[in-house]
Amino acid sequence: MPYERLDKDVQMMKAAGINVVRIAESTWSTVEPQEGVFDFSHIDRVLNAMHKADIQVIIGTPTYAVPTWLVRKYPAVLAITPTGQNQYGARQNMDITNPDFRRHAELVIRAMLGHVKNHPAIIGYQVDNETKAYNTVGPAVQKLFVQYMQTKYKSLDVINKAYGLDYWSNRINSWEDFPSTVGTINASLGSEFSKFQRQLVTDYLAWQAGIVREYKKPNQFITQNFDLDWRGYSFGIQPDVDHFAAAKALDIAGIDIYHPSQDQLTGTEISFGGDVTRSMKGGQNYLVLETEAQGFPQWVPYPGQLRLQAFSHLASGANMLEYWHWHSIHNSAETYWKGLLSHDFEPNPTYDEAKTIGQDFNRLGSHLVNLQKTNKVAILFSNEALTAFKWFGFGWGTRETYNDVLRPLYDALYRQNVGCDFVDPSSTNLESYKLLIVPALYAAPNSLLERMNRFVQNGGHVVYTYKSGFSDENVKVRTTRQPGVITEACGVSFSQFTIPVKVALKGDPYQVGAENNRVTTWMELLTPTTAKVLATYDHPVWGKYAAITENRYGKGLATYIGCGTSTAVTEKIVADAVKKADLWGPDQAIRFPLITKSGVNQQKKTVHYYFNYSAEPGSVPYPYGAGKELFSNAAIAKNQQLQLAPWGMQIVEEK
Amino acid sequence: MPYERLDKDVQMMKAAGINVVRIAESTWSTVEPQEGVFDFSHIDRVLNAMHKADIQVIIGTPTYAVPTWLVRKYPAVLAITPTGQNQYGARQNMDITNPDFRRHAELVIRAMLGHVKNHPAIIGYQVDNETKAYNTVGPAVQKLFVQYMQTKYKSLDVINKAYGLDYWSNRINSWEDFPSTVGTINASLGSEFSKFQRQLVTDYLAWQAGIVREYKKPNQFITQNFDLDWRGYSFGIQPDVDHFAAAKALDIAGIDIYHPSQDQLTGTEISFGGDVTRSMKGGQNYLVLETEAQGFPQWVPYPGQLRLQAFSHLASGANMLEYWHWHSIHNSAETYWKGLLSHDFEPNPTYDEAKTIGQDFNRLGSHLVNLQKTNKVAILFSNEALTAFKWFGFGWGTRETYNDVLRPLYDALYRQNVGCDFVDPSSTNLESYKLLIVPALYAAPNSLLERMNRFVQNGGHVVYTYKSGFSDENVKVRTTRQPGVITEACGVSFSQFTIPVKVALKGDPYQVGAENNRVTTWMELLTPTTAKVLATYDHPVWGKYAAITENRYGKGLATYIGCGTSTAVTEKIVADAVKKADLWGPDQAIRFPLITKSGVNQQKKTVHYYFNYSAEPGSVPYPYGAGKELFSNAAIAKNQQLQLAPWGMQIVEEK
Amino acid sequence: MPYERLDKDVQMMKAAGINVVRIAESTWSTVEPQEGVFDFSHIDRVLNAMHKADIQVIIGTPTYAVPTWLVRKYPAVLAITPTGQNQYGARQNMDITNPDFRRHAELVIRAMLGHVKNHPAIIGYQVDNETKAYNTVGPAVQKLFVQYMQTKYKSLDVINKAYGLDYWSNRINSWEDFPSTVGTINASLGSEFSKFQRQLVTDYLAWQAGIVREYKKPNQFITQNFDLDWRGYSFGIQPDVDHFAAAKALDIAGIDIYHPSQDQLTGTEISFGGDVTRSMKGGQNYLVLETEAQGFPQWVPYPGQLRLQAFSHLASGANMLEYWHWHSIHNSAETYWKGLLSHDFEPNPTYDEAKTIGQDFNRLGSHLVNLQKTNKVAILFSNEALTAFKWFGFGWGTRETYNDVLRPLYDALYRQNVGCDFVDPSSTNLESYKLLIVPALYAAPNSLLERMNRFVQNGGHVVYTYKSGFSDENVKVRTTRQPGVITEACGVSFSQFTIPVKVALKGDPYQVGAENNRVTTWMELLTPTTAKVLATYDHPVWGKYAAITENRYGKGLATYIGCGTSTAVTEKIVADAVKKADLWGPDQAIRFPLITKSGVNQQKKTVHYYFNYSAEPGSVPYPYGAGKELFSNAAIAKNQQLQLAPWGMQIVEEK
Repeated sequence: MPYERLDKDVQMMKAAGINVVRIAESTWSTVEPQEGVFDFSHIDRVLNAMHKADIQVIIGTPTYAVPTWLVRKYPAVLAITPTGQNQYGARQNMDITNPDFRRHAELVIRAMLGHVKNHPAIIGYQVDNETKAYNTVGPAVQKLFVQYMQTKYKSLDVINKAYGLDYWSNRINSWEDFPSTVGTINASLGSEFSKFQRQLVTDYLAWQAGIVREYKKPNQFITQNFDLDWRGYSFGIQPDVDHFAAAKALDIAGIDIYHPSQDQLTGTEISFGGDVTRSMKGGQNYLVLETEAQGFPQWVPYPGQLRLQAFSHLASGANMLEYWHWHSIHNSAETYWKGLLSHDFEPNPTYDEAKTIGQDFNRLGSHLVNLQKTNKVAILFSNEALTAFKWFGFGWGTRETYNDVLRPLYDALYRQNVGCDFVDPSSTNLESYKLLIVPALYAAPNSLLERMNRFVQNGGHVVYTYKSGFSDENVKVRTTRQPGVITEACGVSFSQFTIPVKVALKGDPYQVGAENNRVTTWMELLTPTTAKVLATYDHPVWGKYAAITENRYGKGLATYIGCGTSTAVTEKIVADAVKKADLWGPDQAIRFPLITKSGVNQQKKTVHYYFNYSAEPGSVPYPYGAGKELFSNAAIAKNQQLQLAPWGMQIVEEK
Repeated sequence: MPYERLDKDVQMMKAAGINVVRIAESTWSTVEPQEGVFDFSHIDRVLNAMHKADIQVIIGTPTYAVPTWLVRKYPAVLAITPTGQNQYGARQNMDITNPDFRRHAELVIRAMLGHVKNHPAIIGYQVDNETKAYNTVGPAVQKLFVQYMQTKYKSLDVINKAYGLDYWSNRINSWEDFPSTVGTINASLGSEFSKFQRQLVTDYLAWQAGIVREYKKPNQFITQNFDLDWRGYSFGIQPDVDHFAAAKALDIAGIDIYHPSQDQLTGTEISFGGDVTRSMKGGQNYLVLETEAQGFPQWVPYPGQLRLQAFSHLASGANMLEYWHWHSIHNSAETYWKGLLSHDFEPNPTYDEAKTIGQDFNRLGSHLVNLQKTNKVAILFSNEALTAFKWFGFGWGTRETYNDVLRPLYDALYRQNVGCDFVDPSSTNLESYKLLIVPALYAAPNSLLERMNRFVQNGGHVVYTYKSGFSDENVKVRTTRQPGVITEACGVSFSQFTIPVKVALKGDPYQVGAENNRVTTWMELLTPTTAKVLATYDHPVWGKYAAITENRYGKGLATYIGCGTSTAVTEKIVADAVKKADLWGPDQAIRFPLITKSGVNQQKKTVHYYFNYSAEPGSVPYPYGAGKELFSNAAIAKNQQLQLAPWGMQIVEEK
Repeated sequence: MPYERLDKDVQMMKAAGINVVRIAESTWSTVEPQEGVFDFSHIDRVLNAMHKADIQVIIGTPTYAVPTWLVRKYPAVLAITPTGQNQYGARQNMDITNPDFRRHAELVIRAMLGHVKNHPAIIGYQVDNETKAYNTVGPAVQKLFVQYMQTKYKSLDVINKAYGLDYWSNRINSWEDFPSTVGTINASLGSEFSKFQRQLVTDYLAWQAGIVREYKKPNQFITQNFDLDWRGYSFGIQPDVDHFAAAKALDIAGIDIYHPSQDQLTGTEISFGGDVTRSMKGGQNYLVLETEAQGFPQWVPYPGQLRLQAFSHLASGANMLEYWHWHSIHNSAETYWKGLLSHDFEPNPTYDEAKTIGQDFNRLGSHLVNLQKTNKVAILFSNEALTAFKWFGFGWGTRETYNDVLRPLYDALYRQNVGCDFVDPSSTNLESYKLLIVPALYAAPNSLLERMNRFVQNGGHVVYTYKSGFSDENVKVRTTRQPGVITEACGVSFSQFTIPVKVALKGDPYQVGAENNRVTTWMELLTPTTAKVLATYDHPVWGKYAAITENRYGKGLATYIGCGTSTAVTEKIVADAVKKADLWGPDQAIRFPLITKSGVNQQKKTVHYYFNYSAEPGSVPYPYGAGKELFSNAAIAKNQQLQLAPWGMQIVEEK
């Protein structure tokens, strides 16, 4: 902060209806300027000011960025990555397994929490921030990995066989010889190392949470600020963290969500990130610990957009919304990641709009928080499949990742207003869904695939894409006809696949026009056994093979998409599956850019959100029981037409 | 292999007519699991099974990929390259000059060969695989290089002068000061180091062959699996190996050839790789030790293509055809480089087509193997010129290499069905050709160029491109008018050159249309002395200079191409040269996609292959004496029209 | 030199009118082949030959490239950069702060100058060449940087606050902990380190100049060959050197200027480089120590261009013109950077044209050298702003640099024949100008901005672009409304900015057509306080904000450009500013490709150059008093039309 203005800040926060702030994260060098010398005066000052103003505080542990003295004394705290040892400067540069880092991290956490624990402003704690293993691979980590492998496999013979290490002489004949995985060309070994790295994150967060738990009061929570796969914005499943596993040590899941804005604002990432985070702890409400205010220069919101975004978060089940950050930073690195206030600390259009959000949250919040959502559709994702896809995606020179397969499926649901949850292979609640969407489940154990077969047999619906079921949990390709175990439920098999060049779906079966009817990226040459063919390839040679099939199996239905399809075709396939699962309802009369979300509030009433993600006015029929529009307090009758302003919204609470 | 199925594999191989397999390569970690502990049981098992099935075996020495224990004990076996020391994991990561590597490689070779040498299934040995120096540049290699330089040049004064090391203070005044060439900016020094690295490969293969020769029986051969410049497929002359020199230590040359497929299948790489390999040992038949079956996903062959490819190899003089690999690999790295069998080990369209090839080889093989070919056209290539072109090609920021100059010339011959051989500066048989095509012979000693002049003088025809004769064997630019020594035969000279921008050939002299008439990449501002001008530049300033010339010199003719030309113009120039060399014959009535190849078989009869590299049916006149079509056994009369199915072929054996 | 031909070279130089050569630079390995062993015979030989031929010599100190023995004995002379330690080979690879390098550099300079100092051929000395700090960052340099910081700031508290180091825990609490800046993410710290590196260059050149000054005669000069930001040619302000500071140690400024040629020859770089270099020492004439003869292959000049270029240099105030280099180099690296002679040493069109230049220089030189120029327009550039712009330019993923903002402004002046000088924040003569053009003055102290305000108040005109005034000298963003201090003179402020997507200037205010009217790259959402709005944004949301404004302040006028504009709009804005500053004169009746330059010669007469940078003939009115065309000696009357041949020129000396 360039000059003292805490009182002014608090006053402006209050004016904007802000009732919670997050502090102390990444402040290690300030709170412990030298080893063992602590100074929490900044924290005290802010805590007191906030408490006085009735603003609650989340305390972040300061371990996300290491101080200079720690690096100087223990250079090994900087992680060794495949490109060498990290240098001091950036955050997220440390080896989270390093004993000196751990010891000092624990000391500063204990000192800080011991100091603040009784402060009444605190509602909860955030352990670390956007934690990853940061690709730490040095000798010490390698030692841990070998121990992990010894524990998991006991015998090298098992590993050599399961991973096919004989190939190119990669066989390991003695634990002492176990080479670093940095240079490995063996996808099984490489993928297992990635899994091990994700485990390091889970363990680290559990370790921090355990320390914090010794200090926190029963009414205080522990959270983490997870983040998503980053593609200039929050794009997909986080490759470096097993979110479902890591969230177990927390009381409540937290997330940061950043997304394109202005004419590119669609709400998709808000919905996607919300659905992922809500699913982390089985449908529990979650915290949006960071999202953009002004953000990047290209993200300065149009009038109305900040409001639209804020209520969209609530509509997905968020219970809190925090902006990163309050004011714009004057030096350092994130100077152009602008906060609610610009560098001049003065009111501006974004801050002014935030004030209306605060007022509305104040006024309507009790009808909006703790929204309970019940979805019958889920996306089954898998970090193992994601990692394996990095090794064996669409081939050398291609850039598409697992998330490029997953997101179009999610987007198809979103754009057609089909609410969904996320499940992963550890989920025990698959059976509570009627339809599972399964992108490229490339690596999976037999047990999971057999469970999926039973799911269909028992009446469930599944949509698989290409590259599902191909390899086992060790990324070893199955020796049966593909798609392996799920062939049974899908009623289709193949032995060859190729890259489509000038291939379309024969006869435009989804009536999407020539451009949208093209097959892209990947094509499996499917032969149905019992499946019904939904589409074949339009190609002089491959025309005899099926492209998309569906199969009745037991009481259920399994759809298999054998090739890359356009957005339009993907939407049609998904719509078809939703209909066949008998889930096509009144919300599906509306489609993007008009978006609806719903849930049951604390008053046990159903709340329907209607959002207009467009610069044009919109209008939607309201198909449910009579209710009340919450902003205007206007009565809404069944089948009444709701008018939505550009970037506008309405919220109807059923009676 | 995920499960035991050797008998089944053998049975399927037999069904496909497979009568040779290659084994043991890259298995060091299996056959020597710990230092000095050997286990050849896998090899024995396969040898016995193959022998029982009457399938012959090529044993590869296992040295291509090093085991973990070797790296742990002797970390220096991993080569130091300009980007640092290699890491364990990939194949081809070792320093082939490292004494510990050499010692252990020799031990495992001797142990393996001592163990198997009497097995009757073995027909030959492959030494190592796709051997290179892998850019090894560490201090130990540098020491060898300095010794090499001392031996070659004796005096630093000679080097300083020959290489122009005074420039930018690179002068070396004491052998002790000799710096690593890794950072050198001196193209002469850098090129010499590349030559030295190629020499390491020659020496290494000769060393391995020497060891193997101590064990092999007189009726067994020694080969190597050479490969070509790789551009996602086999593209051009291998930059890292002097093929002609390295092949001297072998009994028979081997090659792997991979190429685009499906609609991109042209047969060019099969022909190119075959011509190069056949030329390595002076026209001797060769082994295709690897080629694609299904290969990459984008290479899955269309029906008929696998057959077309197989017979195309024979038509170029191959005596053996092996697929990489039998079945697809279930783990590791080359999982998506698919074999004859998919991962499911079941018959599939590719395998089924291979069966027909096996049957036809069986039936017709005695008329097809040991094909003798006699060409009057050769391409003169040079590894020295190739390396020098890397330093001084078309200028900073350009990516074209020597092979980008060579391949269009080769392709022009191929597409016009002009058979050719390859010669290099070491070849003693230049004089047996009527036409030599010489791409960018940038670095060459006076002796070679004077020999070329005499070749023309004595009645030979030569086509040179730009950048020929420019520098001497030390990559020192000649101080005479360019193109130096060959000015005499070419009757043309220049002192300036530039990059063409909106330049064409004046008046479209080859009648190829505006697009094809453009000059690209490079243009020398030629002034004829005695040459006839074939084309001048169409440009307001450069219009007074010649672009392409030809010159009668003695009894011969020298064509000089001073600029980059389109495929169409290149074909016309080459056709013109072939005609003027009086080599235009009946085969030239046919052109790509219809391809013809011929040779004399063991029965001393001339065999004519006709291939259709197209999805459309084709038809060619058969201009030779009456014969028999080998597949159908049908009689063929002179001037009869042969019908070629899409991707089809016919083979006519003259009576 | 491949063979002895000094006499022939001298004879050809004389024939071309060459009267000065530069030698000895980068010859350390030749003049000191081993430590302490000196051999200046080459230098003596050339000095004697030149003296005999009446050609004068500039001696370059040989320190630009280090000899092998120095590197072997003191490996630390090779700089450690952020990507590791440099390797031997290239020039410019040393750490200019290394004590061993310094000691030996001093020894060789003293030995060489002691040896040659009395030679009558010498007219001056060049210290080193294109000197930079070469990004030296190793531990020794880091130590120097910490000392520099201690001297500058005394206290870490000051630094922590000024640089905002608390952010992401970058706070430094003890001088011992001061981390390397290599990995820093703090733009303030990173920018200061860049400034420190530029200071190293200033100090190093002053140190060398100090040594040389002990030897040189009073009539000999000391210069340096500065160079410009390199973008394949000389493009903009040099980021790595504070030219104005570094030039203080010299007697006369020198520069090398390379530029596109053939159809891309515009003269812009000649003019730009000349204006920068002339401004280094306050309008003093300068030396062009290197420029292209044939240069790169794509630069071979069209007939007339070499002459056009040569006289363009003189028209900007150059007093000497040297080509890099005399003849083309036969080995090493710069082989395709061709000299006046090709590798064949024979006359060629470029050399032949150079002969006419030499003759004309000889004939007319006394009317052309020592040209005095007086400009009322200057561009205010800043190395601090340039560096800060690297950190905070147009955002992640963009490539535009400070020079991409500066050059279009310069080019707008050039194309409209408005002569200009350069000033930087250290300049004491701002007040001598009527119009200052200020590109993206992103980082600047209050004192400079207040001085600029006063400049306007006192009647000066200023044109600022976006991103001016934003941060202070420590790259800390100001906490006031933007553009900070200059808001006062500009009468405009903003708090938000964004990236333009489909944004234009409302109503095409500069009448440039739709394509040219587009807003690109950056847009500030301006609100005028007292300013007049020249343009607003054409956009549904941002339409209410101003894009370009001007403001009367005191007796002057400040224009503020808040967004990226096309070349056409930039020219219009600049023209408008020139007119309002009452500087629009007769030269502005001419515009590119017809260029005019003028100055006062030694005869105190005004000389007007007219250049035609085009392949089409041109014609310009001559608006000044009667004079004489110097080439033809023809009398020229006022208002006479001058005919300019393609790439031609005329020079009129007023009576």
